[in-house]
Amino acid sequence: MERYDIAIVGSGPAGLSAAINAKIRNKKIILFGNRDLSNKLLKAPKVNNYLGFFDVTGKQLSERFKEHIEKMDIGVIEERINSIYAMGEYFALMVNEKTYEAKTVILATGIEYTKPIKGEEEFLGRGVGYCATCDAPLYKNKIVTIIGYNKDAEEEANYVSELASKLYYVPVYEGVYDLNSTIQVVKNRPMEIQGDTRVNKVILQNREIETDGVFVLKDSISPSQLVPGLSMTEGHIEVDRLMKTNIKGCFAAGDCIGKPYQYIKAAGEGQIAALSAVSYLDSQK
Amino acid sequence: MERYDIAIVGSGPAGLSAAINAKIRNKKIILFGNRDLSNKLLKAPKVNNYLGFFDVTGKQLSERFKEHIEKMDIGVIEERINSIYAMGEYFALMVNEKTYEAKTVILATGIEYTKPIKGEEEFLGRGVGYCATCDAPLYKNKIVTIIGYNKDAEEEANYVSELASKLYYVPVYEGVYDLNSTIQVVKNRPMEIQGDTRVNKVILQNREIETDGVFVLKDSISPSQLVPGLSMTEGHIEVDRLMKTNIKGCFAAGDCIGKPYQYIKAAGEGQIAALSAVSYLDSQK
Repeated sequence: MERYDIAIVGSGPAGLSAAINAKIRNKKIILFGNRDLSNKLLKAPKVNNYLGFFDVTGKQLSERFKEHIEKMDIGVIEERINSIYAMGEYFALMVNEKTYEAKTVILATGIEYTKPIKGEEEFLGRGVGYCATCDAPLYKNKIVTIIGYNKDAEEEANYVSELASKLYYVPVYEGVYDLNSTIQVVKNRPMEIQGDTRVNKVILQNREIETDGVFVLKDSISPSQLVPGLSMTEGHIEVDRLMKTNIKGCFAAGDCIGKPYQYIKAAGEGQIAALSAVSYLDSQK
Repeated sequence: MERYDIAIVGSGPAGLSAAINAKIRNKKIILFGNRDLSNKLLKAPKVNNYLGFFDVTGKQLSERFKEHIEKMDIGVIEERINSIYAMGEYFALMVNEKTYEAKTVILATGIEYTKPIKGEEEFLGRGVGYCATCDAPLYKNKIVTIIGYNKDAEEEANYVSELASKLYYVPVYEGVYDLNSTIQVVKNRPMEIQGDTRVNKVILQNREIETDGVFVLKDSISPSQLVPGLSMTEGHIEVDRLMKTNIKGCFAAGDCIGKPYQYIKAAGEGQIAALSAVSYLDSQK
């Protein structure tokens, strides 16, 4: 399998700045994120405090960032990483059925985590999961509930529906749902996940669903769930001034490491993280 | 006497970023520096790693910075601050015969280099540079001389040696040199850098080296002379992640607080320093 020097998770200013700096240092990089780069930036009505750009919209700044990475031949891989495991010599980044390998990781995942549903964290691994396609085989001929926060979740639901005896789909977004006809769509706000040793019920605002498993498919999961063993402090990833986390070879930058939540602060940290990763790689030779 | 909310010392990317952020927060600021902003930036032949600007010269980037502060009505006061004293309620910034007062101070003084070699300043940007890894691509298949003042320079030398056709390393310190075997170590005191339109020669005490470029990689000098009582660590101002120094109301950002010496890293830190100063001022009310 191809092994990258640096895997960067997140395509906001921190991730992009890390990517351009790592690429300039001739490292083999892979950048995971969104083709739109950063939704938060895209929706910013006005940005005045990013030195070099006065009175621009978030969209305009975003376009400049896109132009920058495109000119450097940096592409964004639109995959949602579910877990990252430190394997000693390298990191394994899991995306549903796929695995990527990288010698170092830079986390630039931002701060917009969807607040967990009551019971979600408690039953994680005991009937609650974040990757439906990964765990689908466990639910052959069983009842599965998928709580979907975005359109991507529909594809996973369709896949699981072919194995499960029954699939309930609870969308937490508006839209047209492209789902197999066997799937039952339940438009009702999820309130709580219940069970005893394992999940057995999902409580919605106006009804309950008896279920063997629940998948919560959201835009982002918290960094400590993403990277088992990662040290956090007050809800942020703990790093030193060189953007090193407590895990060797794992760095972090941007909103996910703390306030202020600002673009050029994030870009500066992304640069530091990249240069620290480069030093680390060079020291391993 | 007029008392400012925030006095910013230094007009490189850290100082400018601090200034725009403080001004956006409606603080009364004064910015000390150079009308040319940053000499180092101005002479950078090529900048690719400042997110949003690809393939620009230092001069072009500098002009964008100037445009940004001008549009925000921020001027640069061309005074050289000699000393800064913490007076309790405020800071006194001394300029020869004059004194300025400010409730907080942001130090963005960059790296004060050791005494330049003859010809070094004259050829800066014309074959002389201070960041070997940044400018290395310009010297592909060319002859490069690195004058190293400390062990850190060796890493940069190793990096450049992979691109250059020939690399001379002139150490201005004693020790064991961890250098690639292709590098030629010349233990001989550097006396002068010569050239015509560009550098072509380095004069050492007992020999001369014909070269296409010279990197002078130096130690920094302590800003603790500027601010009596300021804590330093390994030649840099000691700060926490919020850019606070050991002196209440005194913050620092950019090259003066440590490596990597990079523009967007400095700008990000300038932003953090400004927002920390704003918080501090608000807490004093």
